[in-house]
Amino acid sequence: MNHPVPPAAVRPRRPFPSELLSALQAQFGERVSTSEAVRAHHGRDESPFDPQLPDAVVFAQSTEEVRAIVESCARYDVPIIPYGNGSSLEGQLLAVEGGVSIDLSGMNRIVSIAAQDMTATVEAGVSRKALNEALRDTGLFFPIDPGADASLGGMSATRASGTNAVRYGTMRENVLGLTVVLPDGRIVKTGTRARKSSAGYDLTRLFVGSEGTLGVITEVTVRLYPQPEAVSAAVCAFPSMGEAVRTVIETIQLGVPIARVEFVDALAIRAINRHSNLTLPESPTLFFEFHGSEAGVQEQAERVESLAGEHGGSGFAWATRPEERSRLWNARHTAFFAMLQLKPGCRAVTTDVCVPISRLADCVEQTEQDLLGSPLPCPIVGHVGDGNFHVAMLIDPAKPEELEEAERLNRRVVQRALEMGGTCTGEHGIGLHKMDFLLDEHGPAAVGAMRAIKHAFDPRNLMNPGKIFSYSA
Amino acid sequence: MNHPVPPAAVRPRRPFPSELLSALQAQFGERVSTSEAVRAHHGRDESPFDPQLPDAVVFAQSTEEVRAIVESCARYDVPIIPYGNGSSLEGQLLAVEGGVSIDLSGMNRIVSIAAQDMTATVEAGVSRKALNEALRDTGLFFPIDPGADASLGGMSATRASGTNAVRYGTMRENVLGLTVVLPDGRIVKTGTRARKSSAGYDLTRLFVGSEGTLGVITEVTVRLYPQPEAVSAAVCAFPSMGEAVRTVIETIQLGVPIARVEFVDALAIRAINRHSNLTLPESPTLFFEFHGSEAGVQEQAERVESLAGEHGGSGFAWATRPEERSRLWNARHTAFFAMLQLKPGCRAVTTDVCVPISRLADCVEQTEQDLLGSPLPCPIVGHVGDGNFHVAMLIDPAKPEELEEAERLNRRVVQRALEMGGTCTGEHGIGLHKMDFLLDEHGPAAVGAMRAIKHAFDPRNLMNPGKIFSYSA
Repeated sequence: MNHPVPPAAVRPRRPFPSELLSALQAQFGERVSTSEAVRAHHGRDESPFDPQLPDAVVFAQSTEEVRAIVESCARYDVPIIPYGNGSSLEGQLLAVEGGVSIDLSGMNRIVSIAAQDMTATVEAGVSRKALNEALRDTGLFFPIDPGADASLGGMSATRASGTNAVRYGTMRENVLGLTVVLPDGRIVKTGTRARKSSAGYDLTRLFVGSEGTLGVITEVTVRLYPQPEAVSAAVCAFPSMGEAVRTVIETIQLGVPIARVEFVDALAIRAINRHSNLTLPESPTLFFEFHGSEAGVQEQAERVESLAGEHGGSGFAWATRPEERSRLWNARHTAFFAMLQLKPGCRAVTTDVCVPISRLADCVEQTEQDLLGSPLPCPIVGHVGDGNFHVAMLIDPAKPEELEEAERLNRRVVQRALEMGGTCTGEHGIGLHKMDFLLDEHGPAAVGAMRAIKHAFDPRNLMNPGKIFSYSA
Repeated sequence: MNHPVPPAAVRPRRPFPSELLSALQAQFGERVSTSEAVRAHHGRDESPFDPQLPDAVVFAQSTEEVRAIVESCARYDVPIIPYGNGSSLEGQLLAVEGGVSIDLSGMNRIVSIAAQDMTATVEAGVSRKALNEALRDTGLFFPIDPGADASLGGMSATRASGTNAVRYGTMRENVLGLTVVLPDGRIVKTGTRARKSSAGYDLTRLFVGSEGTLGVITEVTVRLYPQPEAVSAAVCAFPSMGEAVRTVIETIQLGVPIARVEFVDALAIRAINRHSNLTLPESPTLFFEFHGSEAGVQEQAERVESLAGEHGGSGFAWATRPEERSRLWNARHTAFFAMLQLKPGCRAVTTDVCVPISRLADCVEQTEQDLLGSPLPCPIVGHVGDGNFHVAMLIDPAKPEELEEAERLNRRVVQRALEMGGTCTGEHGIGLHKMDFLLDEHGPAAVGAMRAIKHAFDPRNLMNPGKIFSYSA
């Protein structure tokens, strides 16, 4: 491999005392691993960067165990990196200063489902699919769906979203409360199961999106939604991505309560066709989904079909049967992995900008112009109802010049989004990769305020050090 | 008056240096006031507590002016209390340690309206009605509507909501970004105009609900919504509050996207009838509003009417014409003032609990039992779609025993809500009044984390001191 972490993220590794390892082994026995394979698995994620191995991995099974690990690490000044399902995209899991990776995948219990209140409390290692499986007979579902089958803890820490955010919001709107182990070992429970509260500072929203830098999330209480009475999905091809995006903008502005609307460009459609064995026309395409009553879904769909027609959309193909819909959305969800197969052995540098919706067509079209001049294959997919899209720049890990080219394109896309009043990351987080962009986006006073919070919670910088904030600035 | 601030909120006043007054007068001239009348006006709110006067009031007109005032106060260690429209309910505006009240009502400019993006940026002194007036020709509206015509800055600081929250969320969901003057005079801009972001800690959500204790909010960017194509409203009387509340619970659980559903008990209906010259039956009543397409509104209304019928609801009266609807909702919005007129010269101690919706009927019915035994008139209104309701306990300011009785009832209601997994405050905030409840609700570790943030931002405790956190604990 040949893609070192970005210069701003380079850190000196801290010493790993053998006394700490002995203490952990005494308590956790075989659930402590220092094997190369386990450490390598936990020292990487879906980002393009070379792994940075933790010194040890501990497989925790309860909040109390996490507290014990955190207290042990704190005693020796050793970093702690919470690990869910390993699907983060910006290097959040890389142990840039060494330390202990706490694997939470064994914390996979559904703690409680309150069907009447439409809330569920789960341990942090429960994945979004496992939660929905547990909800199957309740008539409820949990809508947030990043591409990977991420853990609820990781999704909270990343402030993740996905294809349903246009209707149901992101983790920001859907986490009601958290259990968090703080760097000093205290256990905090934030929020309640009430739908709203004005009781003090919003600690829930502070931990949501904190990327493991303020504490270890061990339990998550989320909002659930009634499974819609009727669902229909459709695919529609457009002559250009501008026309597709303009269809979406008008849909949102009309107040149509669309549940999902995803943009997939021609190259990404090719990847999806190959990977999911579909035969969609290789054009800029929108995937739609409508939720509501039978009549409501019908009405929404007619409006959108008419808007699409005005923008040259053709071949509006309906998928009303559940298995057709599943096939379509599975294809969309596996798009990231499908795109990786466009270039065997590649890794992806993925942009994640999100702009005010009035600027989305401009932003996507100008980005398309940039990409025309690049040697890299760069499929585009987007949660366009939110103004969020991803360019996956496929790079050969053996060619540093390809990483450099991808980073050049990434910088241009981010700069453009910020100039348009947008953000450098809609749902992937800062991690190791966007620390400079964070400063560009918010300015030194706001980043200074964030650092002040970090310092107040974690004065010795033990919790996932080296993420969000650059070492130097 | 005879209702001192609660014991936990009693503070020593700080000295007010004449040099600070001279400095402020030199810069702001007649926009600095030390008159008794102006100070008295700014040292109270809609809470039942005796006023606590600031030493001076400064009428600010820009973020830069606020910065100058904050820097001057910081130089002399003098407290700062941001003041919007004076409508807070929990003593948030009382100058318990003295200091300077910064009146932001002159900061009433609409900075920008981005109709295509459905966002608006306003100065903190703009009221919710003024914003909606400015939006009139755009086809958009801003839904958050506390009873008073509060300022957007104050609504942000209180994490306010109102009658539309069941569909549109609260200030938590609808503030996209803020401009805030920090205690050291730095100006922070949080958030962007993008609908979602994972870029660093969620400072926006941290300042939303911070009640002036972390900085002075001077600008607010909010989400807007398309005015619904069709709106209809209805009133329905029920045999008991339990049956009314159960109708609401089933409506929510069926996923009917109801825009507003308000509970008003028989006594509150009497108050509203007198105050707004209406003739509603004096029974437990629900006010409904439906937003959507013509067909969608019709369908929602039919479902709810049928559910209401199953619970003994009768006399479902429709208000489809805009002027009928306005009359109905004006009556609901002025309910607080109408209720005050039930007992001339009274002030109200208002509960604000919010519980998981499955517990709402129990919580309201048990509370009703408590109130039966009380000598105080205690009308109840509620944003029941959120699980939030208010008991307004009407007390004679000349009778300390009535405050004591109200506080006794309040403690019982809060204790019950917390046992049910709810919160002590759905939308009014902690202020001076619920500091002990905050600790009961969140526990010492979470409140300790909040205090750590407060200390990191404001180590000398200059920003609205004495609010949210008790002096002793």
